[in-house]
This record gives sequence, C-alpha cells and structure tokens, in this order.
Amino acid sequence: MQRRQYLKTWLREERLQAGIKDMSDQLSRRQLLELVGKAGGSAAVYQVALALGMMPGRAAAERVSVAKAPAGAGKNILLLGAGLANLCIAYELEKAGYQCTFVESSERIGGRSLTLRAGDTVDEIGQPRKVMFDNESHLYFNAGPARIPAHHHLLHGYCRELGVELEWFVNDNRYALTQDDASLDGKPVMIREYMADARGFMSELLAKAINKNIFSEEFSKEDSERLFEFVRRYGDLDEKGFYKGTARAGYASGGMIEPGVKKGPLDFSELLKNNFWKSGMHFPDGESQSAPLMQAVGGNDHVFKAFLPHLKSTFILNAPVISITNTPAGVDVVYSHEGKHKKISADYCFNSIPLPLMTGVDNNFSGKYREGIAKARRGKLTKIAFQTSERFWEKEDIYGGISWTNQPVQQIWYPSHGVYKQKGVMLASYTWSRTNSEAFGRMSPEQRLEDAKQQVSKVHADFPKYVENGVSVVWHRMNHHLGCTTSWSAEDKEKYFKTMQMPDGRHYMVGDQISYHSGWQEGAFSSAHFALAHFNERVHKA
Amino acid sequence: MQRRQYLKTWLREERLQAGIKDMSDQLSRRQLLELVGKAGGSAAVYQVALALGMMPGRAAAERVSVAKAPAGAGKNILLLGAGLANLCIAYELEKAGYQCTFVESSERIGGRSLTLRAGDTVDEIGQPRKVMFDNESHLYFNAGPARIPAHHHLLHGYCRELGVELEWFVNDNRYALTQDDASLDGKPVMIREYMADARGFMSELLAKAINKNIFSEEFSKEDSERLFEFVRRYGDLDEKGFYKGTARAGYASGGMIEPGVKKGPLDFSELLKNNFWKSGMHFPDGESQSAPLMQAVGGNDHVFKAFLPHLKSTFILNAPVISITNTPAGVDVVYSHEGKHKKISADYCFNSIPLPLMTGVDNNFSGKYREGIAKARRGKLTKIAFQTSERFWEKEDIYGGISWTNQPVQQIWYPSHGVYKQKGVMLASYTWSRTNSEAFGRMSPEQRLEDAKQQVSKVHADFPKYVENGVSVVWHRMNHHLGCTTSWSAEDKEKYFKTMQMPDGRHYMVGDQISYHSGWQEGAFSSAHFALAHFNERVHKA
Repeated sequence: MQRRQYLKTWLREERLQAGIKDMSDQLSRRQLLELVGKAGGSAAVYQVALALGMMPGRAAAERVSVAKAPAGAGKNILLLGAGLANLCIAYELEKAGYQCTFVESSERIGGRSLTLRAGDTVDEIGQPRKVMFDNESHLYFNAGPARIPAHHHLLHGYCRELGVELEWFVNDNRYALTQDDASLDGKPVMIREYMADARGFMSELLAKAINKNIFSEEFSKEDSERLFEFVRRYGDLDEKGFYKGTARAGYASGGMIEPGVKKGPLDFSELLKNNFWKSGMHFPDGESQSAPLMQAVGGNDHVFKAFLPHLKSTFILNAPVISITNTPAGVDVVYSHEGKHKKISADYCFNSIPLPLMTGVDNNFSGKYREGIAKARRGKLTKIAFQTSERFWEKEDIYGGISWTNQPVQQIWYPSHGVYKQKGVMLASYTWSRTNSEAFGRMSPEQRLEDAKQQVSKVHADFPKYVENGVSVVWHRMNHHLGCTTSWSAEDKEKYFKTMQMPDGRHYMVGDQISYHSGWQEGAFSSAHFALAHFNERVHKA
Repeated sequence: MQRRQYLKTWLREERLQAGIKDMSDQLSRRQLLELVGKAGGSAAVYQVALALGMMPGRAAAERVSVAKAPAGAGKNILLLGAGLANLCIAYELEKAGYQCTFVESSERIGGRSLTLRAGDTVDEIGQPRKVMFDNESHLYFNAGPARIPAHHHLLHGYCRELGVELEWFVNDNRYALTQDDASLDGKPVMIREYMADARGFMSELLAKAINKNIFSEEFSKEDSERLFEFVRRYGDLDEKGFYKGTARAGYASGGMIEPGVKKGPLDFSELLKNNFWKSGMHFPDGESQSAPLMQAVGGNDHVFKAFLPHLKSTFILNAPVISITNTPAGVDVVYSHEGKHKKISADYCFNSIPLPLMTGVDNNFSGKYREGIAKARRGKLTKIAFQTSERFWEKEDIYGGISWTNQPVQQIWYPSHGVYKQKGVMLASYTWSRTNSEAFGRMSPEQRLEDAKQQVSKVHADFPKYVENGVSVVWHRMNHHLGCTTSWSAEDKEKYFKTMQMPDGRHYMVGDQISYHSGWQEGAFSSAHFALAHFNERVHKA
C-alpha cells in the first residue's frame, strides 16, 4: 500500500529474514521498529519511533522558563509592536526581572487580535468607519484569529494560567450548507447529506473493485474480507455493497412517530460538480481544524487582554518606527510620536512589525536578513460581517459552524455564541483567496456589503431581509498591517526562514510571521518562545 | 450507481426519451423530478420532492397547540409518571385550562432525566448508594440523556421557550483515542490518525481501481477525471494516487518553528483489526450524533426542571400504580401511597410507565394493547463515572468527546464542561451493549468500578492514580425503571407499535418508548405531542 522508497532497499533483506510477507509492499511501524531495534538498539528505536509519531506525548511547542535577569546592564528590552508575540515576551521577561517598553504604531494594543463590537473603528486606509452593531455582549465577531485548537499548547497554557474563559467553537457543522452554481442548479445542500452520499458512492465503487478481485495480490483473504466489511460500514452500503442512501444524511421525513424515511442519494455526477470536495469537505480534518476547537468567551481579544494586568511595561502608542540600528551594546530605535522623531535605546529588541512594512524602516541589518525581509509577501484575507435582526440560521437547524459556496465570499460563519438570542453577528464571508480579497479590497465598503449580501442570498434566499448593518475587514488595507499571515514563497522560505528566526545583532524578528503557523495565535507564541530561548541562553552565556 | 428498483421499470422508457444516458443505472433527483413533472404536474413534483427530501424545510416533529379546554367535565387529567413526556403534556394542557395530577412511583420528578451530583442517591434495587463527588457545580454527569442534536425541534423549542441555557457538547473529538486489544499490540491510537490513515488507504485503493479503468463504463471521461481528483483530495494522496501520510493525522513533530513532519501511516492491516471501523468511526455521522450537539449548562436535568415553575399540577410522589381501569367516562387509577391503596379518577390519562413494568399493573385494556405491552423489551445500558483528582485528559490534548475501546466499557466520555478546572467527572463507561450491561449488572458496585478502572487503564495507563471515587448506573437495575430505551423486536414493532401509539379508551401510553427515537428527549416530546394532537381533536369533536 504505502510506499516508503527510502526504506525499501536497505530493509528488503531484513524484512525477508523477519518473515514479513503478508502485504507485499508494506511495512508496519511496529515491524519497522523491530528491525531498527535489531540493527541499532533501543536508542535508535526511540529516534525512529519519535520520527514516526509513535511515542507517548505529542509534538509540542516548548515553553521557555526565562532565568532571572542579570545584575546591571542588559535589562532594558524594547518591543516593537504590541501584538500577542511581544505581549507574551514582555510577560515572561518581566517575571524574570527585565524592564520592557513597547513602541506600537497604532493607537491600540493587540495587533491582529481584533474583536469588533459596537462603536469600534475599522481603521482602513483612507476610509475609517464605525462598527454599527447594537451594544450587546454577544454582538461581535473576531476579525483576527478566532479558533483555539486542542494541540496549541502554548496558547492553552496561557489561557489556563491567565484565566481566559473558553467555550467551544463549532467549526464542523454538518447541518450547514454547501452551494455551488455548477451543481444541482445552484441549490444549497446540507453538508451531512453531501458527505454521506459522497462516502456512499466512493464506498460502492471500492466495493465493486474488491468484488472484481482487483486487490487480491495485496491482501490476505482475511484482510480482504475485513476490507469489504470495512467499506460497507464506511459508506453504509447494503449487504451486497450497493449504496441506497443513509440515515447519516438526515431523514427525508419521520424518525420520531413514523419510521425514518431515508433521502434518496443525490446524483454523484452533480456532487462532483460542486467544488466542496476540493477543500470544504476535508476542512474539518485539517491539522489545526479538527474538532474540538475553542474560542475565548466574549471575544477572542480576551486572550491578549489577559496579559495586560500582569505587565508593568511602558506602552508608547501612536508611534510608528522610523529606523532600527544595531549598536555594539544594544539597539537604537527612532519612532515618530506626536509630530516628533524620538530615539529610544535598549539592550535588546523584539520586533513584530509585519515584514512587508519593515521594508520601509531604515536599518543596518545584514544583507541576507534584509533580503529575507524584502522577499516576504503580504497575505490578503477578508472578513465581512453582518448584524441580523434574527438568527434565521437557527430556524434552519444551523447552530454555529460554516457554510461553503463557490462564490467569492467562500465561507459563511454562524456564531458559536449567543444561541437563542434575538440577533446575531454572522460572517457573510471569510475569504482567504488572494484574488477574492483583492477584488473586495478594490470595492467601496458599501459595495462589499452589497456584493456579500447578494452572494449569501444564494445560500440563504431571505438573507437580505434580515440584514441590519455590516462591516468589512480587508486586512491588506488595514492601517498598521496592510496584510496578514505574512509568508514567503516555498523557495524563499527555504532560503531565508532560518535567517529570519535568528537575531540580527540584538534585534529579533518575532510574531506568527516567523513561524510555520502564520495567522494562528500559536504561531505568535511559538515564535516568542523560540526567540526567548535564544535570548535566555545568550544573556546567561555573556 | 445507486439502484432504484422501484423506479427503474416504469421510468426506463421516459429516461431514454429524456436522453439520460450518461450514467447507465443512475437517475438524479433533479432528472427524476423533471420526469415526474411531465407525467403528473407540479403537485406530483411536490410530493415526490418531499419524499426525496428535496424541499426546503426539514423533517420536523410537529408541535401541537392545544385548544382551550371545554367548559364543564373533561378537564381532569391524570399523568402516570413524572418524566419529560408527561411534564410536557401537563405544560401544554394547563396552558389550555386543564387540571393535571401526577402520580409518580419514585420520590423524584424527572424520570430518566437524571443528573448525578454530590450527595445524590443512586436508587438501585437492593443497593442504594450515595454519590461521593465533591460538591462543586462542574462535578456531575448525566446518567440519562445527555445530548441535544440540532434537528430535535421540539426539544429546542422548549429550551428556547423556557430559557434553558445550552452549551456545546463535544461528541466527535479527533484527539481522543481508539484502543483494541487485537490491533497495534493493544496500544491506543489518536482517532484523527486512525481516520486519516483509513481514508488514505481507502482512497489509494480506489485510485488504483480508477487507473485500471474498472469504472470506465459508468463514468464519462470528464466525471472520471473529476473522480480521480476527488479521491486524491479525499485521502490526501500524492499526484499519482499514493498515500504517504497526511497532516490530518496531526504532525509527528514540528509545524511551528520547524516544518511539520508527517506521521508515517499506520499499518492498514492493523487498522482493520481494530473494531473502531465497525461503529466508532461513523458514530459522529449518525442521524442524531452529527456535530454540533448541545447540552444544558450545569446538567441536563435543567431541561425538565424548566417546566416545573410553570406547572400548577398536583404531584403525588412515592405512589406506584396498582391498576388502571378504563370506565365509560374516564379512567380510574389505584396507587399505593403511605401504606394505603388510594383511588383517583380522571377524564383522561397519559401514562409513561415503562412498558415492561406495566405488565405488573392490573388493567382492562384491549387484547392487542395488552399484547403490545407484554412484548416490549427492557433496554439495558450502563454508565460508570469517576471523579478524578486531575483532568489528566486535558494534558493529552483531549477536551471533551469520546474515546473507544473494544473492552466492555465501550466508550470513555470526557466532560464537555469544566475545562481547565482542577477536577472532573468522566464516564469510564457508556455501554449500550446488552451483554456488557448485564455483566456489569451482575457485579457488586465495587467490582464494577474496579473492572472499569482496569479497562480504562488500557487507554490511559495512569488512570487509577487519578481516581477519587466513582458511581455506576445500571439502568435495568434502577428502581422504578428496571430498564431504559424500551423497544420491541422489529417484527413486534411492526405488529404493535401503531396500536400502542393510539389510546385505549381514554388512556394514552406516552414517552420515548412510544417513538422511533427511544432513549432521546425528542422521542419523549414527540410522543407527547402526538398524543396531545389526538387528544385535542377528540375532545373538541366530542
């Protein structure tokens, strides 16, 4: 089954000796470990097992304990940008006795950790505007990060330590809808119906292939029988391996007083025309998208706000950075504030300014560091939210979760909070497509809302009549950000990423942009702790 | 693909005329509707579309509005059993001006809607015992119904109307574990790893079959290409259709500071040996198990408790029923109370006594009604819960949800409430297997706990060291119930169910047992409203 070319050649002999013949091209992890054990002993077994993910414990980001600050010099820390990464760094450094100063270009703390509520300003270049939601605690949306996966250990560690109250976030809602203009005359289909039918059809095909003995060489008779039964259960096929619909799609009628009547299967050819299978169908299986996910109660900005009461730091807001200069003994930073250029010096500097904006900041960094900065690309994501007079989706059995459409709005998010309340704020769009976001960016704010409204109408015909007001956040047009989820091309990442992770002099670039998990809070915390580990070691070596 | 034998013959001609040739044996719902439209017009289209589940709106249980009670006689209603069904009936009848009296055999209201907290009594025959949990609001478990699916409309309607606060219930946790003694040396595997690998292997096999042109007769070239790509995405296969592991399984290492390293796939033969694919793998796709589910905040008994402040009913507790007699003008009931037999008469009676217990109640019902009662089987389910000194599962990235094992405990439930608290109450077992439950029933309470503890240790090796106290609820040994999820054999259900749904004289059997959704709150409400609808009509006809 699976090919492990890199192991095949050198293990062929050992496998034959070990009597592994049952599945011609396959080697189980357990069998592999036995062979490795014979060849290299238990230390080798441990390394290989770890690489194969077989050891207890899971791939964890490591949390650093910063040692007590040295006596005398070396204690003044400058933090450029008051987002999650630097708030976390300040929190850890202050615990160890360091003195921290933030220089933040905008008037607010939190960076892209942005929850929008009544009266907030969307600070878009050239067209700042107020959020018109009613002033109620459940009427908000997270314009920035929104989801907390179970394995984001640093994030969970801080939520636990700082008392951030969490609640579940519905990512996978089988009652939500998928709609594609090319399929089923553009009619929306319940996701659980789409999924159940797609699995049924797939399984039926596979059952047919098994019955034709296509795989007889690969499986023992016993495995082959198990496989057929496995496939039958997988797709809910009948005894002979045919798919005739399943209760998993939800009943067409009955199920309580009358017997449940199955829906007939949708046309498979029509299902294939719906692009849902390209990403939506597997989305809730993603590495950081798997159930269960959580969110902070009352808005995700409660994560960063939980750090604030613990910080003694000075915050200089409305202070865009002009230049950064590594000096023999530290870092000098010039920023503009209240119409004047001001200089501040520190022993070390942690900088979370978005890399695409860093190209406008004078510096004396090394060549490759500068190149890495210049190669970074600004990410382009858009969220468009509406306050509705009714939570109409709940009447359609949709509580939280995401509907999908092939239109530019891409995803429709129903809030995981405020169930049964009169009104709600739903995302008419979360689009991470560069093209779609650029298109929304070119529109006036009014036009964006109008377009989103029309698009959502294909999924929920009555949507416009519930809309009270709306707001769009086009991240590549937001002041002080001009993008989000900064990244490099694969080639550039390979070339520059290690350089960007390391300090240039006493200056560290940090933030989710300096992680493999850009756009996630855990990326920011991971970068922070990676920088802290390096910092901690150098300070105490010196 | 799918066979619709019942349509095939008469539609063959029409299909050929309509030019449907692309998929030899298949008829899409849309195509079907077109043909029906030609033959029978729009009314026929509507009926067929409804039967196929294509109309807007979903299969709903209907809520009855009870008309104002008639003047004079006919207002006195007797309710036997104070569970959800009768509480709901009393609520609706009292709104319409009826007078209700409950006769309940136990000392408590709620029936199987039972949430156990510190100091509660588990009223098992011969061995009542106290729940020893600490007295904290998050230390409880729902011994009875626990889940609220999105499409249980009557239940949602009452929660909304009566202000029952809901929160999400994690049913599908991909970070939870599956363990089977027959597979992988009995080592537990993360569910998302199992699922991702199983899908990968299935998809690889199907890709191979497609490449061998097994299905060329069934698919157009275009569909065939789409299908290959569909399968590739489904299993996260490489370009050529081979499965080499996927990030969906969770990374073995990295993903934040280092690139994510995929886990190598598990051995498919070993996966097939784990019985997880027989039910656990599809469990969260079930008709009433699909995400998202909810639970009542603070314990599921808040659902039934929400009715109480609205009721003016008399509750006679500790009053087991002795006999029920239909009379020309009503129903006479004799019950024992405080050592005496007492008689009460009413115009109508709604009876939710478990059918297996009804065989011990004298009555003058018709022959078939009595037969139906006698044929009902008592369901046997067991829940075993432990209070733990730590929420150790959270350290393993498990927040809520269910782990599976092939051992008698079957399912391990981690609480969806109390995240980050010190202690928790987890279900070491939810077993609905008759055999397993009978075995637990034969053990002493101490032995049940001991057995469950040992079994859970195979999934969580350190489990015993966290255990503080525990409690078992074996439903077929619980006083006043002696079973749960009453049912008939398929044959008997066919023969007797309609009879049991209808009244015998002025006596109605109600409860989840009189629904196709036994064991669910929605079953109880559905039965209640079905009986109310019948009652309402007859009263106003008469």
